[in-house]
Amino acid sequence: MTTALRFSLLLLCVSFSRGFLNDLFDEEEQAERVVQASKYGSLWPLPQKVQLSEVSFKLNGVSFKISDAKESTAGQSCSLLKDAYRRYYEYMFGSFKRQEGRKSRRAGPSDVTELQVWITSSESDCDSFPSVASDESYELTVDQPYAVLKAPKVWGALHGLETFSQLVYEDENGTKSINSTTISDFPRFAHRGILLDSSRHFLPIKVLLANLETMAMNKFNVFHWHIVDDPSFPYLSRTFPQLSQQGAYHPYTHVYTPSDVKMVIEFGRLRGIRVIPEFDTPGHTQSWGKGQKDLLTPCYSGSKPSGTFGPVNPILNTTYDFMSQFFKEVSTVFPDAYIHLGGDEVNFSCWKSNPDIQKFMEQQGFGQDFTKLESFYIQKLLDIVATTQKGYMIWQEVFDNGVKLKADTVVHVWINSRANDEMAKVTGAGYTTILSAPWYLDYISYAQDWQKYYKVEPLNFNGNKQQYQSEMANITSSGYQTLLSTPWYLNRISYGQDWKGHYQADPQDFQGTDEQKKLVIGGEACLWGEYVDATNLTPRLWPRASAVAERLWSAKEVTDINDAFNRLSVHRCRMVERGIPAEPLFSSYCPREYRGV
Amino acid sequence: MTTALRFSLLLLCVSFSRGFLNDLFDEEEQAERVVQASKYGSLWPLPQKVQLSEVSFKLNGVSFKISDAKESTAGQSCSLLKDAYRRYYEYMFGSFKRQEGRKSRRAGPSDVTELQVWITSSESDCDSFPSVASDESYELTVDQPYAVLKAPKVWGALHGLETFSQLVYEDENGTKSINSTTISDFPRFAHRGILLDSSRHFLPIKVLLANLETMAMNKFNVFHWHIVDDPSFPYLSRTFPQLSQQGAYHPYTHVYTPSDVKMVIEFGRLRGIRVIPEFDTPGHTQSWGKGQKDLLTPCYSGSKPSGTFGPVNPILNTTYDFMSQFFKEVSTVFPDAYIHLGGDEVNFSCWKSNPDIQKFMEQQGFGQDFTKLESFYIQKLLDIVATTQKGYMIWQEVFDNGVKLKADTVVHVWINSRANDEMAKVTGAGYTTILSAPWYLDYISYAQDWQKYYKVEPLNFNGNKQQYQSEMANITSSGYQTLLSTPWYLNRISYGQDWKGHYQADPQDFQGTDEQKKLVIGGEACLWGEYVDATNLTPRLWPRASAVAERLWSAKEVTDINDAFNRLSVHRCRMVERGIPAEPLFSSYCPREYRGV
Repeated sequence: MTTALRFSLLLLCVSFSRGFLNDLFDEEEQAERVVQASKYGSLWPLPQKVQLSEVSFKLNGVSFKISDAKESTAGQSCSLLKDAYRRYYEYMFGSFKRQEGRKSRRAGPSDVTELQVWITSSESDCDSFPSVASDESYELTVDQPYAVLKAPKVWGALHGLETFSQLVYEDENGTKSINSTTISDFPRFAHRGILLDSSRHFLPIKVLLANLETMAMNKFNVFHWHIVDDPSFPYLSRTFPQLSQQGAYHPYTHVYTPSDVKMVIEFGRLRGIRVIPEFDTPGHTQSWGKGQKDLLTPCYSGSKPSGTFGPVNPILNTTYDFMSQFFKEVSTVFPDAYIHLGGDEVNFSCWKSNPDIQKFMEQQGFGQDFTKLESFYIQKLLDIVATTQKGYMIWQEVFDNGVKLKADTVVHVWINSRANDEMAKVTGAGYTTILSAPWYLDYISYAQDWQKYYKVEPLNFNGNKQQYQSEMANITSSGYQTLLSTPWYLNRISYGQDWKGHYQADPQDFQGTDEQKKLVIGGEACLWGEYVDATNLTPRLWPRASAVAERLWSAKEVTDINDAFNRLSVHRCRMVERGIPAEPLFSSYCPREYRGV
Repeated sequence: MTTALRFSLLLLCVSFSRGFLNDLFDEEEQAERVVQASKYGSLWPLPQKVQLSEVSFKLNGVSFKISDAKESTAGQSCSLLKDAYRRYYEYMFGSFKRQEGRKSRRAGPSDVTELQVWITSSESDCDSFPSVASDESYELTVDQPYAVLKAPKVWGALHGLETFSQLVYEDENGTKSINSTTISDFPRFAHRGILLDSSRHFLPIKVLLANLETMAMNKFNVFHWHIVDDPSFPYLSRTFPQLSQQGAYHPYTHVYTPSDVKMVIEFGRLRGIRVIPEFDTPGHTQSWGKGQKDLLTPCYSGSKPSGTFGPVNPILNTTYDFMSQFFKEVSTVFPDAYIHLGGDEVNFSCWKSNPDIQKFMEQQGFGQDFTKLESFYIQKLLDIVATTQKGYMIWQEVFDNGVKLKADTVVHVWINSRANDEMAKVTGAGYTTILSAPWYLDYISYAQDWQKYYKVEPLNFNGNKQQYQSEMANITSSGYQTLLSTPWYLNRISYGQDWKGHYQADPQDFQGTDEQKKLVIGGEACLWGEYVDATNLTPRLWPRASAVAERLWSAKEVTDINDAFNRLSVHRCRMVERGIPAEPLFSSYCPREYRGV
């Protein structure tokens, strides 16, 4: 792969660390270390099947065009594709002045002059919204004189355009080339998300759009918009405008108007990204209480209200009237089939202090079990939301507390200390789930923590089984051989035909079942907002989230951390060149450094 | 201080953390928490003496002007001050259109209409470069109709202008006000620096200037420019252009030309900031070797050169010829009285492998003690640099190895595990020193690590004394009372007049002596470049470095972390408003969020 080699040498140079952290290395090892060229160039995330040849073609911005294939079911009117063609043309050739350039160079015999985009399904989805069931697959053939991108739906075409743009490279003279290539690609997981939190710090629309743009470069397809929370309520509700009027950091400058929200949704759709809003209740609702009287529970200090408020008040009918109207609005504003309803971290101390709540607990026979009250509330909320024809996602506590969930509920696993068990339990109960626990990107640490995110294997949880099965999984995943005896201690006799137990024990069955694994539909990288705002969010998210992107898109076997480093280093420079301040992995440079501050 | 209270309520709102990190707190405590107004408003770093009154005056951009006091020794020709007047006018009033505004409002009777800047010393230093001995003091009186800023030199006037701008606040209507105030101020330490590393990642000039600008907002006065290192050599030398031609990441796009360097120096000077370049040898020089044949030591593998290179070759005359010429250039390019010569982390393995070096060691009688060879080199280098009439700074290893240093050498302490001992030793030997060990800002961690930097006390080291004296210091600094017996175990007899020892032991003498403490001239916050470049450097540095700024400027007693949080929160929003992407301390908002991505 000499071509790819030249490519990466040109695009990136990585040097070695300041010695004091590396006392173990000899001086000569501290010498400058050039990033190795991956045989996969700078593809990120790595497609499922890639065949790269050493035959290279030229590409020139004057004559090159991206166009609909004749047979394509997405016609001239598909503005989603037109928008994408323009975007990728600009990524590849910058703001090339077609008119000026035309005289200087015509297409040569060794040029790829066209990328034909061919939507093959009778329904292109051009004017639809993406969903968890959307077909995102595509096939890309780069050859002369045409490259062809085939995809059943526009969603695959978008990903294929990104992949095509990642195959293009530049020599010292600025000449663009691309190698003869065949790619067949599809995502490993259907739900590949980023959570951003616009409550702890308000995130200007410009920041949201830049990150949607970057998500597309990494083939993420879900923007989980944690839009409101305790600190502020920036969502401007048409039905309850006082929520943001009172609850936002500022009623005009720190809110998302209906047209802002529309813009975010359409910007996402044009990039194949679903926008799933989270309106988290009954906890995390301090900011709601400012604009909506009686919504929150008054806390008591002894026999008197203390003046502070706790979670949503679950014992008032007005609460449910409000929620009905509010979520009716939300269900029309956000077109996605799912809404995230939160349900995490409900603190019971305020409920406990309130005499009306206590009385209600008695009436309902809940005793002192406040999880029952929590479930009472959530159950009613879920039933309300179900009437809007939306599906819902919820944080894992709602499942843990035994709330009755619709079959299509997505359970969101976030507690890292028991994530594997939780994945086993949720899928064992037959629910779909997504994983975020190991991907809380707000927790920063020194050096290359992207590797930690990269090494996560979402399906590496044990089924809902015996302890010895966990042990078998541990031992074998450490590379040791093992023999099993636990289920065959025949001295332990029991009533009935216990031979069946001995017979059914399967020494190899120590992982979650295939059925369970299928219920893991993906994951999300979460960047909670305590310590990030417009000043630092983007470089903190990228390229750390890119590690999660590849884990969720590429084949399970794609785990070579060195190859990942090589590809990701160039991928991050590409993001920088596209105007995104993605931070460096290590000492190195990009040919075109970030132009901001 | 109701005015200050209003001020901060308007400028910033801090909210409480996501609960899962705060399980100990009750729900009501998780309620939104408004930042408390400091009685010192948003002053940062806190001046030495502040008297704020509740009397407030209006300030309007149309009529307000900053001008030279009649008696000032800096006249109309002092462009340093003119430049500063313009800068601070813009900080305070934005790009106010004087012409349009003039009609709408005249100065009222309660206005402060002018800030008169009065340089009192016969030599204003207007056209000089700042130095470690520069007088940075100033006195500021805000009253009606004039505010007066008196300073012996322009350096104090610059700081006073910053302080004045920090006193201005805005109400909901955008009206600017300032309270009647008297401030007398001077820095606790003379050397208050920021180290940036332009070798591991190239830092575009734009980034350097933005950070010099921010340094001035925080009253830092030294830019320690770690300009070259192993990974790259971006300094374009007129004498040896091949150094950057070969050693920079790119010979045109990733270098600092002579005019770039001039611009950085002048930009710094206009803000009272010294620019001290570091050319670190004999280690950290891999990039030097690319453009300068025979400069580095060839490493051997067995009896043959391995093709790799180690530190500077200390046994060749050509090395010293090169260094003479190189540092002659450097000493003219950089006007500061000091050059940082590095000298840290020399790895001996390559020297050990080289037979010529081994022979030289024998000839010199160094045995196998390579620190002697290191010192041999450094000694010759220091003597060379001394002929350029420059003083030098060196990393602590050079002192540790017993190299003979000029009396005015500044020893830079960076190894955190033994920083206190080192400070004691260096000052005990009579050398001036600066502290960086606890302020390696490249080491990031989750949450508010600025507090850790803030809590450092640079003079809290023990003198070069007995172990019991360290113990006394530990005990008393923990607030306990103690009795001393160690020096008075009279059963331990010794030859001669041992009563003298018993007599001289001073139970209170367990800290460094006053003479030692005076030798601590300051400190530097270091942001090494492995993981930062233009994409993330600025938000990673600010406001974390602001914590160091206050520690080095303000009185030793200024240690109230809550008050610091309150002031710093508003100070960071001020930096954001001035276009600097300073990251947030915690959940909160700024009235004007950062406008970039």
